[in-house]
Amino acid sequence: MYSFPLSLRKLIREIGKMPSIGEKSATRLAYHLVYRNRELAETLANALKEAVDSVHLCSKCFALTDQSVCSICADPSREQGVLCVVEKPIDVLTIERTGEYKGVYHVLHGLWAPTRGREPSELKIEELLIRANSGKIREVIFATGATVEGDATALFVANELADVAGIAVTRLAQGIPKGGEVEYADEITLARAFSGRGTL
Amino acid sequence: MYSFPLSLRKLIREIGKMPSIGEKSATRLAYHLVYRNRELAETLANALKEAVDSVHLCSKCFALTDQSVCSICADPSREQGVLCVVEKPIDVLTIERTGEYKGVYHVLHGLWAPTRGREPSELKIEELLIRANSGKIREVIFATGATVEGDATALFVANELADVAGIAVTRLAQGIPKGGEVEYADEITLARAFSGRGTL
Repeated sequence: MYSFPLSLRKLIREIGKMPSIGEKSATRLAYHLVYRNRELAETLANALKEAVDSVHLCSKCFALTDQSVCSICADPSREQGVLCVVEKPIDVLTIERTGEYKGVYHVLHGLWAPTRGREPSELKIEELLIRANSGKIREVIFATGATVEGDATALFVANELADVAGIAVTRLAQGIPKGGEVEYADEITLARAFSGRGTL
Repeated sequence: MYSFPLSLRKLIREIGKMPSIGEKSATRLAYHLVYRNRELAETLANALKEAVDSVHLCSKCFALTDQSVCSICADPSREQGVLCVVEKPIDVLTIERTGEYKGVYHVLHGLWAPTRGREPSELKIEELLIRANSGKIREVIFATGATVEGDATALFVANELADVAGIAVTRLAQGIPKGGEVEYADEITLARAFSGRGTL
């Protein structure tokens, strides 16, 4: 029975181990890499090795960095007493783009998702509690998504933080997004916009 | 301004060069590889290098192989005088799975697609004409897809083959697929099923 060369089958299998890449996509990508763009296969392999060798988690906030402490944690002009809790490293990038936030971060590396078998112990929650207990933190802002898992994680961790004295625990406002019409807002968004309403 | 470490940005850029992987997907995959599954990053990098080093095109049919000639072309029990012309290497695998075909292949590595800027000169058409002119080929079967590009490529190459004496040029039958109801067949499929009808 004819089959692809062993090294190609192996490549397809490895590519297919990445999240949301099925066998068909893996085969298409492998073909692209061994025939259409062999140069990319080389540069990609080198980039993978280089990134794995140099990228790790910031020892303070667990963002991705190639230093021992990331550039935000190392920046003396940032408010080290304010922690913004996010799900994943890309969220740090997104929030930094607004230029609004002057505190530092804490990356959980996931959300509490019992339906998908992800337990709180797999997240950087213990590490957050240690930071909160250091006596240097005055506010913890939850910036997890406005989803069931984002809400559950924020509530779970906020509950753990309740014992720590002198810390304000807050959450990003939820409401109508910019450009959003009331007519098209869903009930939950509207309800949250009402309960979180501010003075004009 | 905060940004990801340089080696991570490079990895995201390289991953994003693969077909149908956008920046968001590339970022998600890169994060998975440098944090969630670092072992996969290693094995993937090695598999890439190994595949690029060992996989190349069969010197006869242009299928993917790690030998100088692929196992089908090297098999004396296959009918070397019958060529099945396909678009891409995966098509060889798919046809082999039926166990019906006993000839050999010719992989074009693409289809004639003027709208996407792919010209016949980029395909293995010249090589097909050389094989056809060798005097050893008695039938060329087109097994390109029943699409506009598959049809156009088959017609274009068949036209080139018209000058070669003693070669039957055929094409895979088009009609109603197994399990297909007449009620749900589109007009072109039905028209092709009529014109290609056989005796019961």
